[in-house]
Amino acid sequence: MENMENMDFEAMHDRQFDELMELLDAHRMKELQLRLEDMNEFDVAEFLTEIGDNRMPMVFRLLSKETAADAFANFDAPEQEQIINSITDSELSAIVEELYVDDAVDMMEELPANVVKRVMRTATPETRNLINQYLNYPENSAGSIMTAEFVDLKKYMNVRESIARIRRIGEDKETIYTCFVTSADRKLEGVLSVKDLLLSDDETVIEDLMDKNIIFCMTHDDQEEAAEKISDYDLMALPVVDKEGRLVGIVTVDDVIDVMEAEATEDFELMAAMTPSDKPYSRTGAAEMWKRRVPWLMFLMLSATFTSMIINSFEDALAAQAVLISFIPMLMGTGGNSGAQAATAVIRSLSLGDTEPEDVLRVVWKEWRVAILCGLTLAAVNFVKMLLVDRMLMHHPEVTVTVAAAVSLSIVLIIMFAKVVGSILPIAAEKIGVDPAVMANPLISTITDAVSLLIYFEIAKLILGF
Amino acid sequence: MENMENMDFEAMHDRQFDELMELLDAHRMKELQLRLEDMNEFDVAEFLTEIGDNRMPMVFRLLSKETAADAFANFDAPEQEQIINSITDSELSAIVEELYVDDAVDMMEELPANVVKRVMRTATPETRNLINQYLNYPENSAGSIMTAEFVDLKKYMNVRESIARIRRIGEDKETIYTCFVTSADRKLEGVLSVKDLLLSDDETVIEDLMDKNIIFCMTHDDQEEAAEKISDYDLMALPVVDKEGRLVGIVTVDDVIDVMEAEATEDFELMAAMTPSDKPYSRTGAAEMWKRRVPWLMFLMLSATFTSMIINSFEDALAAQAVLISFIPMLMGTGGNSGAQAATAVIRSLSLGDTEPEDVLRVVWKEWRVAILCGLTLAAVNFVKMLLVDRMLMHHPEVTVTVAAAVSLSIVLIIMFAKVVGSILPIAAEKIGVDPAVMANPLISTITDAVSLLIYFEIAKLILGF
Repeated sequence: MENMENMDFEAMHDRQFDELMELLDAHRMKELQLRLEDMNEFDVAEFLTEIGDNRMPMVFRLLSKETAADAFANFDAPEQEQIINSITDSELSAIVEELYVDDAVDMMEELPANVVKRVMRTATPETRNLINQYLNYPENSAGSIMTAEFVDLKKYMNVRESIARIRRIGEDKETIYTCFVTSADRKLEGVLSVKDLLLSDDETVIEDLMDKNIIFCMTHDDQEEAAEKISDYDLMALPVVDKEGRLVGIVTVDDVIDVMEAEATEDFELMAAMTPSDKPYSRTGAAEMWKRRVPWLMFLMLSATFTSMIINSFEDALAAQAVLISFIPMLMGTGGNSGAQAATAVIRSLSLGDTEPEDVLRVVWKEWRVAILCGLTLAAVNFVKMLLVDRMLMHHPEVTVTVAAAVSLSIVLIIMFAKVVGSILPIAAEKIGVDPAVMANPLISTITDAVSLLIYFEIAKLILGF
Repeated sequence: MENMENMDFEAMHDRQFDELMELLDAHRMKELQLRLEDMNEFDVAEFLTEIGDNRMPMVFRLLSKETAADAFANFDAPEQEQIINSITDSELSAIVEELYVDDAVDMMEELPANVVKRVMRTATPETRNLINQYLNYPENSAGSIMTAEFVDLKKYMNVRESIARIRRIGEDKETIYTCFVTSADRKLEGVLSVKDLLLSDDETVIEDLMDKNIIFCMTHDDQEEAAEKISDYDLMALPVVDKEGRLVGIVTVDDVIDVMEAEATEDFELMAAMTPSDKPYSRTGAAEMWKRRVPWLMFLMLSATFTSMIINSFEDALAAQAVLISFIPMLMGTGGNSGAQAATAVIRSLSLGDTEPEDVLRVVWKEWRVAILCGLTLAAVNFVKMLLVDRMLMHHPEVTVTVAAAVSLSIVLIIMFAKVVGSILPIAAEKIGVDPAVMANPLISTITDAVSLLIYFEIAKLILGF
């Protein structure tokens, strides 16, 4: 850190990579090996990914067993597959045994079947059983993201014995900072932190120290629920128990970050009318993206038939008063945008637990008032704009005061409709157990498009009398 | 945990609350107090919030100093304000001193000015200085979310001395699990974990144990950058240093969860054309929501003037071929939805660090291929639908094969334009330092609306010859 002044993290990071690359180019393998062993596993993985396919397996084999496994866990699937294909069975077995179970399971879910087969064949029977057990938990359940490597204590131990146990078995555990007290039949009886242990007297008995008020989740609970508990209660690790109350694993705080990112991505994708996927954009092919996007586009295109029908039924009137046509896109756009605002605000609020389905009346009442405020503002601006810009500046004498009034009144009613529908639909979805994100922009636009037209034409009929 | 079988966490949680409520209703305050002291502070805060305004301050005063401060940190701003208004200065001072600095700063940022004044007056000079120093860091910087309560060690200490120091000073630290080694002038020299300490020999010297390859950030770095480092490197705590390399605070993993939630909410709001805010939906009034929503609605409404102008310039042709009007909403909708899909996928990929601005050509090439696939599929379905449904089923003889061909060809070109613009604009925004989320759905719709119309009318002119 001596030269840290006037130098930022990224610059240091880049310089480090340049130096490593020089060592590699000069075939100074011994020095490269020493440097890599000293680095963070995330950076080791990044460096290996960057040096290119042909040199990567060779450099990987320089690493010690522990560093190799840690770097391996940080690889993306293509790099993992490449490594697996270029090492011997005994090297592979050593890596699999070093991996935390949840990392091994993640890997299994991404690799092609023949590679999985080879990994499973080289694993010890014990590891194989553990991985199999994990793979059977439902996708996105707490069980599927938990790890089995935790520190368990007994309630009759004292602080000194507990610390000694942690020092003995802690090496391979994903976290040692939260310890779990279990009975002889593996039932969870209490939790305590290493902080509690360190700040207590050596002779204190665990039973007096442990927290019996345990925050926990079940193996089949949704991973999002587990993530919420860790976030709400600021936990380092959340115990996962089976139906009999036996402790089977823990979910750690770093898993929560991954879960939260994945859930947010899923919401973004649903809200833009795409079928969600776990794969990152950069590794999704065009054909797969087509499969995830085209069904919704098709559905929305076909539902626009209703808007066409509405326009058709007013066709003669529109042909007579052609000036009305030019405001259709603006009105539909305003309706769609207003609805999307309300829907997005409500969907996000529901997903953060800030709004519950029971709040529906309060939400609608609020959106109703916002709609009136937005509607009146936009209507006033539009009225002035139509007369000043469209009529006077752009010389459209057919834009009369009554036409401007009809369009402006439509704006108010369209926004009111859009905001109320936009806020009710996500809550209704949540109520019946559908992801509210499905009720976002595209679906709401389709509804507001049709209703906006109806409102506009009916008002035009009323005011302009056609 | 004895009766945990056949009972889930929520049921236990509700039963606990019911029991507490009974104790409160029966004025059995001593028992209530004992029960509350035993509970998690998140639940205590929830219980206090639920029992209603008039009884809340009374029950709050039953709590011990530590529990009161912990519960207080878990309150939302209205409850914090209510408590502050109902306790004495010395009680307030005790709570402020117990709070972690980052929690105190969070509180200050949400409370009304007169309440902040009173809190600052009751704080000790030392706490006041610390809070002031924090409040001066830019909003959303690493400095603004860091805490000053960390464990610092010296490199000449050995493991036994270090553990003794942690046991002595650890009580008030936000985390003891990552320790920071600093020089005499407070420069950061290394980090090590309690796990390293516990798993090493008592006589090992810290200098030999500590990691000198430090992952850190600067006080003025964006909080999102700090969160990314913690997430990428799976850290418990990230050291924050000033320009001179002096350690001034740490950001912990639980802060990251809050940052990630806030950043995702901001993206959602931007993408639905709203000015982002830190306030939850349930506590935002109608007037404030109007202020955050109406500017964008106005801007988008006024930009629709271009679409109006395009329609106006084709008005005579449209009046002659009125059947063309009814397909305008479908075409604009398809363009908007296609663009939104591409934009959302690219924005999310940028924000997860999966795509970099340098990848622009690869991204456009991919979206181009997706657009051709989606375009051809939709065009084919639309062609058949127009002839079967519109022409034959709904008896519109004016929907001829050439009209269907013109509309279908427009679909292909519109989708290609929308997907390419939808993917380029967010990358361009990122490149020039604007949040890519601004380039989402509403803005892209406005562009695709206008261009969709131009494409449609030009193709109709070409094929139908008007």
